[in-house]
Parts: sequence; structure tokens; C-alpha cells
Amino acid sequence: MSLIETSTSPYKKLERRFSRLAKLSHAETFLHWDSAVMMPDGGAEGRAEALAELGAIRHELLTHASVPETFALADSELENLSENQRSNLWEMKRSWQQSTCLPVDLVQAKTIAGSKCEHAWRDQRQANDWAGFLPNFKEVLNLAREEARCRQAAEPERFTSPYDAMLDLYACGDNAAFISEVFGDLKSRLPDLICEVVEHQKSRPKIELAGPFPIPAQQTLSHTLMDILGFDFNQGRLDASVHPFSTGDYGDQRITTRYNEQEFLQALLGTAHEMGHASYEAGLPSEWRNQPVGESRNMSIHEGQSLLFEKQIFIHRSFCDFLAPKIGAAFPSLNNFTGEQLWQLNTQVKQDFIRVDADEVTYPMHIILRYEIESALINGDMEAADVPDAWDEKMRAYLGVSTSGNFKDGCMQDMHWTDGSFGYFPSYTLGAINAAQLFDHMKKDNGNLETELASGNVNSIKTYLQENIWRKASFSESQALMLEATGQGTNANFLLNHIRARYLQEQY
Amino acid sequence: MSLIETSTSPYKKLERRFSRLAKLSHAETFLHWDSAVMMPDGGAEGRAEALAELGAIRHELLTHASVPETFALADSELENLSENQRSNLWEMKRSWQQSTCLPVDLVQAKTIAGSKCEHAWRDQRQANDWAGFLPNFKEVLNLAREEARCRQAAEPERFTSPYDAMLDLYACGDNAAFISEVFGDLKSRLPDLICEVVEHQKSRPKIELAGPFPIPAQQTLSHTLMDILGFDFNQGRLDASVHPFSTGDYGDQRITTRYNEQEFLQALLGTAHEMGHASYEAGLPSEWRNQPVGESRNMSIHEGQSLLFEKQIFIHRSFCDFLAPKIGAAFPSLNNFTGEQLWQLNTQVKQDFIRVDADEVTYPMHIILRYEIESALINGDMEAADVPDAWDEKMRAYLGVSTSGNFKDGCMQDMHWTDGSFGYFPSYTLGAINAAQLFDHMKKDNGNLETELASGNVNSIKTYLQENIWRKASFSESQALMLEATGQGTNANFLLNHIRARYLQEQY
Repeated sequence: MSLIETSTSPYKKLERRFSRLAKLSHAETFLHWDSAVMMPDGGAEGRAEALAELGAIRHELLTHASVPETFALADSELENLSENQRSNLWEMKRSWQQSTCLPVDLVQAKTIAGSKCEHAWRDQRQANDWAGFLPNFKEVLNLAREEARCRQAAEPERFTSPYDAMLDLYACGDNAAFISEVFGDLKSRLPDLICEVVEHQKSRPKIELAGPFPIPAQQTLSHTLMDILGFDFNQGRLDASVHPFSTGDYGDQRITTRYNEQEFLQALLGTAHEMGHASYEAGLPSEWRNQPVGESRNMSIHEGQSLLFEKQIFIHRSFCDFLAPKIGAAFPSLNNFTGEQLWQLNTQVKQDFIRVDADEVTYPMHIILRYEIESALINGDMEAADVPDAWDEKMRAYLGVSTSGNFKDGCMQDMHWTDGSFGYFPSYTLGAINAAQLFDHMKKDNGNLETELASGNVNSIKTYLQENIWRKASFSESQALMLEATGQGTNANFLLNHIRARYLQEQY
Repeated sequence: MSLIETSTSPYKKLERRFSRLAKLSHAETFLHWDSAVMMPDGGAEGRAEALAELGAIRHELLTHASVPETFALADSELENLSENQRSNLWEMKRSWQQSTCLPVDLVQAKTIAGSKCEHAWRDQRQANDWAGFLPNFKEVLNLAREEARCRQAAEPERFTSPYDAMLDLYACGDNAAFISEVFGDLKSRLPDLICEVVEHQKSRPKIELAGPFPIPAQQTLSHTLMDILGFDFNQGRLDASVHPFSTGDYGDQRITTRYNEQEFLQALLGTAHEMGHASYEAGLPSEWRNQPVGESRNMSIHEGQSLLFEKQIFIHRSFCDFLAPKIGAAFPSLNNFTGEQLWQLNTQVKQDFIRVDADEVTYPMHIILRYEIESALINGDMEAADVPDAWDEKMRAYLGVSTSGNFKDGCMQDMHWTDGSFGYFPSYTLGAINAAQLFDHMKKDNGNLETELASGNVNSIKTYLQENIWRKASFSESQALMLEATGQGTNANFLLNHIRARYLQEQY
């Protein structure tokens, strides 16, 4: 790879190498988008081969034998670098470390075991077949433990446990000690609060809406919502896919949602959620694009943006008042649709089995349960075979439902662990807290915020996020970002207060 | 690039290297498709950078210092290779030679000059500004001459002129001596035949169809046409773009067409044409995918397939009878639409200025004119400044119209020369002849062919092409392919006879 060796400063050499990596990532990003949104089934084999080749080339570039020496040389001339360049160097090293610390054999074994386990799981889950799933899952877990040990061993000064090293892949900066503290606050108060909300909602009238809701009208509504939330269609697009997601690169943010003719809320919630992710990406500083420090901070901050758009803006009572008439106009059967109805549809709370169907009140308990189990699994304090009992016990304690013998709706419901993605779950709830905390701060800062939302105006929200989160990319650690933006680190009280205010109409 | 050095046989090493190249091409292919079909404007900058990076990596892989030695080693053990492997080795060398024979400076200068000339041409053409265009065009021509000289010098045994070396990029196997012979036959008879056809059509009633023709209905019709022509929508898709094109990879053929609400034929003709290209690609032998010999033969054969679908099948009188009622049913204003009307719309002949708007009867003269001028330009027998006069003289002689002073509709109408793509044009007419010749052979071979077309059945046509052209990929030279398929090499008489039969109702 001779092209990168022509510039002189070691730091600049690294910048060029990482810029090449980013351009390969661009290719992978849009090929993945195409696979999920456009590609016919027949293309799968050729696409998988091409992506594997791109991954191999990216790995060769990143793990090239010259890189450690170039890092050492760059370290020896730190005084010549700006503070931002030093941050970039640090992020380069983190990325390089994550890619080089695992033995090639382990990476291959992990890919094969994860793919096998996930593939079999699709049928095993339907069949409630824990006994069939367990051997595959054990294999995945053993390899993930090995991975976590290697990652910890590579940077023992940063990681106090194997699980901490896994968390760093998703929630960089939010370690297990910190998460335990934040989740501890939630855990001590949320289960009772859930019961209180459920009791409070008992007298609610049930809203039944008659479909069908034609998909072209839903698509138009999603576009309308994106216009309201300030999406630039010269810089991105909306499509449909089985699972909503957001991806893209500089100048081209692509989001998807899913449509169901019997129900229109899911598409709009998906659109609002992915709009948050896409707005973050679109707001990253263009002068640092293609460099590691120019990327989004971590998944906790990312989910903070998406959940802010979905839970704080879209479900806000004032915004519901603004949006409901537009929904009513889109579907003849809903011509008297009110903001109150829209809000009630979005705020129904139920203690139930399935995480992805859970409301914002019960959702954190689904996450805390997974956090407790996966950290114990990775650190060797729990075995794979013990998961169903632990799951049932925690579901009964946290949400009052039992999953005994019901693996399908219990510990076999998620895909994350099947391919070894341990450490991802906490970001969902850290993000929900970050969203509530950021929104609370904006509300205190801007007395007109609710009036603005009542007219569909999100300008001040976007300006605040642009200034305090998006443009800061990865220049600060996640907790420093939250501190600078809101005066304190991620604090569960903001989510608890938000729930009390929205669901029990308590002022705080 | 260490991954490719693990297998032992030099031939196998080369196979692995070319397989990696093919996987990078897959990425480039679908990113180009995305740029033309899906990408918002904002994505252009990042996409251009990513494509440049992929191109650079592909070039590094192909021109790696170890390659010449590996070729030499592979040559020394030819006796261990099958005939097909030897053909593959030959195609690998051709591809390598084409990529390595030009100095890097020349490639860069060519890219810059071509990009500058093409960009300025977009406005200059509209303004009829030959004087403004000429300096840029001179620069492009000088660099193309240099390119052609380098290419010829690299393989003097294969190329008898610089222009021959350029032809090899597009029409590999059909050299200038051969093309001059084929085009000579056309040139001696076609201008008179054109006059005869125009005279014959003077009494034709003019068909005026009242639009608009809603685009969703046109899209459905294009899908219907693709179903009839045997497209597998699990192995590809149809979309819209500014210029129709066909691209893709194994298992995923993507074609586009363009829609105009005032006129429905253009979309259907585009669909039929691109179906020919896509069917060829889909019919290539999957066991040789990702290898050079597994690719389509050349542009003359490729246009042979697309023009066979467009000109021989779609415009066939029997097929028009089959298709017309489906078109009539799609548009309320056309409910009495007949096969005769569809056929007449598709067979209107006019001596006119613009190649891309030309009918199949006059089209070859547009190509012969360009062939004569571009071969003289590249071989140094004509200068850039002389092009307008040569153009006017030939247009008057071949098509009876003058382009004197009308550069816009004369020598400035095409994009090909603006970025240095000399040698491409002949394939269009070689393809038209190949299409007529293949169809004639099938008709003589299968007495039911016209009856089959009258019921929209193209199975026997596709089976014949699959067996005689598509599955043979690049295992034979183009003229050997035509000989094996039809008993002779590309012969202009087949196109002339087709024209006499279709336009003058003469039997042959």
C-alpha cells in the first residue's frame, strides 16, 4: 500500500491511512444499505464475498506492520499536534487496538460460531427449543469470554474487567462501575413506579382505530414528519426495510422505517427514531470527516439522539396536538383524530415479555435484566445453562411476569447474544436517560420550547444539539459531553422524573 | 497483500488475485448504480472519494510487482492447465497489460483533461461553441493518441495501428481491418437503401397518440415486458435513471429505463434493450464468475444481445401484435391500440442529425462516419480542427443533411470523444449486425419462431443464445463465437437483408 507513505509527518501518515479506511467503510456502508433495502435475494452470495474482501483489505490496511512504529513516532512529536489532533490520535489508537488485539483464529472461530448460532436460533426460538440452542450458545459465550479477556489484557489500565472491554466497543467511556451505579438508581425505584403507572392507567379508555391505513399515505406522512423534523432530502433519503435503521456518510444520510397496513404508528415512530440518529450523523463536523475523532461518540449518545426525537419530541403532548390533524387528514377513517388520542396511543404501559415491544416505562427493566446477566456471563460469574432461571427470577422481580419454561418470550427473544454482541444492551437505557436529561435541560433553558413544539418547530432543539453534542463528535468522552451539555453526567433521575411527569402528571 | 500468497501454483495465485479484483469491482459496480439511481446530490463528494480509493486499491493489486513473475511462472507450466484455464490466463494478461502499459502521468493527465473537456462541453454544446470546445478537445485527442501509441507499443504483434489498440478496449477481436471491410459493405449499399425506404414510407399515415401516459402505468408495463422476456426478479431489479443502463453482478442484474409522461415507447424500448444486456450477463457461466474469462466477450457481442432484444424481438411485427393489447389496456386513451400501430411507431425512418434519436436504418451511417473520423484522428491522419468539415461532408454524403456551422447537432453531439473514449462507436453497428445475423440463424433453425413471438414466447431464442453465446463468456474470440453460432463471422448482409425485409417487405 505505497500511496500512504509519501507524506512526511507520522501523524499525517496516520491521517492518510485512516482516511483510506474511512473510504472503504463508505463502500461497505452503502453496500450494506443496498443489501437491506434494494438487493434481490440472488445477490446475497456475491455481496457477502465482496464485503468479506473489503473487510479483509481494511484489516490489512489497519494492521499493517508499519503502524505500531508510526504510532510511536507520532507519540514522540505530540508537542507539534493540536489538541484536536491529539484526540484524533487517541481515537486512531483505540480503533487500531480493537482490531489488532484478537488472534486471527479467535476472530474466525467467533464469526463461524456466531453465524451458526444465529442461523439456528431463528427456528429454535420459534420452537421454544432451549436444549437445541444451548450448545451453540455455550460455544458463542466461550469465544466471547476469550475475546473479552484478550481485549482486557491489551489495555489493562483502561478495563477493570473483561466485560468492561466489551462495553468499550459500544458505550466507550461508560464503564461497568458507572453503569451499575446509574442502573442501581433506576432499579431501586422503577419497579414500584411501573406498578403505580399501570394502576393509574387502569381507568383509561382503550383506543381502537379502524384500518387499513394504506402504505402510500403512510409513506407521505413519514416524509411530512421528516420535513417537520428538518431533514434535508438533498442529503439523504427514506426507504422501507424489515427492521428500521439509519446509516450513511457525509452528505448522504439514509434512514428506513417499516410499514404495516393495519397500523400506522410503528412507521412514524421508526421514522422519528431514525431521524435522531441521522441528524446526529449529519451534524458531525465536516472538517473532520474520514477521521476517527470526527465520528459519533458512542451508542449511548447515539441512542440519546434517537430517543430524544422519538420519546421526547414525537410523543410530547404538544407535538401530538400538532401532528394529529395531519395524520387525520391522511386517512379518511381518522378524520376526527385528536392529539389526545395520539398521545394515549403512544403512552400505554404494560408489564410484558418482549423488549422490542416494550413502552419507555418498562423498557429500562428489560435492559437492566440483560445487563446483569451478560456482565455475569462474560466475567465468568454465571454459566450459559443458568440463564433461563436467572431470567425468570428477574422478570418476576422487575416486571411481575414469569418466563418459566417460556424461552421463546424469555431469554431466547433477542438476537444480540446469538452472534456474541455482549455489551450492546446498556446503551439503550443510557440513551433513554441522556435523551430525558438533554430535553429537560433544553426545556429549562428555553421557556418557549413547548409552544414551539405545539407548532412543530424543532429549530431550537436542533441548534442546541448541534452546538452541544453533534459538532463535538468524539472530541470529548461521553460523560464529559453530558456534563458540558447539561451540567452533570448521565443521571437516572431525569428519566424517572420524565416518567412521573408524563405518566402520573406530576410536576418536578 | 499477503492473503493471496498462500496457495502454491502460480496460476492459482493469479486466479486468487483476479478474484479479489472482481470483488472490488462488485463494490464499484453497485456504488455506481447507487450514484445513478438512488444517491441524493449531497452524497456525490464522498462517493467520488470512495470510488477513487477503490480504483487505487484495484490498481495496486493488479500492478503489484510480483505479477509479471507470476505470469512467467504460470507460462512455464502451461501443460498443467486445462484449455479453459489457458484462456483465462490469456484474459488475465490482457487485462493486466491494459492496466500497466500506460505511464501513471499519462493516466492522470488523461483523467484531468477528459473531465475538464466533458464538463465544459455540456454548456459549449448548448451554445454551439466549437471555438471554445476545440482547445480542450485537442488536448484530449493528443493524450488519446499518446495512449494509443503506448498501447500499440506494448503489444505490437496484436495491433497494427494505434487505433487498433484502442478498439481492443471495447471490441476485442474485431480489429480495424475487419471493421473496415464490414462497414465498407454497408457503406456501399446503405445510403441508397435509406433513400429507398424513405421514399417507400412517404405514403404512410402519421400516427399521433394522445398522452399523458401516467408513469406508474408505464412502470407496470415495463415489468410486464420483463416478465414476458423472462427476467427473474429474484435475480435483479428495474429502476429509473436519466440514461437507461444495465449493470450488476452474479445473481443480481440491475437495469434502468427512463419515463416520459408524454410518450411511452422510449421506456419500453429502453427496457427491452437493457433486458438483452442483462440476459447476457445472467447467462454467463457461474463456475467462472470472478475470473476474466468468465466475463462477457466484448461490446460488439453485448450490443448484439441488447439490439436483438430491442430490434429483432420487440419491434418484430408478430411481437407487436402480442404486446399492443397490453399497452392498450394500460392507457385508457389507447383502448383500440393495434400491433400495426405499434409496429409503425417503431419503424419510422428519417435522415436526421442526431445519432441517439436515429432509427435502425440510418443509425449505421452515423456510426460509420464516426468510425472513419475517429480512426483518422487517432492514427494521425486528421487533426481536431478538421473534424467539422469532415463531419459535414460525410453527413451530406451518407444522410443527405448538412451540419455546416451546426456543431451542436453535428460533431459536438456525443459525449464519447470528450473524455477520450475513442474506439467505442463501432460496437453499436457491429452489434446491430450480430443481432440481425443471430436472429436470422434462429429463424432458419426454428420454423415456429414467428408463431412463438406472436404469443410472446421467447424461450427458444433465450435457449439458443444461452447455448451459443452467453455460456461461452470469453472462451472464444468474438468472430469465432459468431462463426460457431451462425456459420460465419459478422456479415453486414444480414443487417441489409433485415432492413429490406422489414422496411421494404422484401423476402430473402
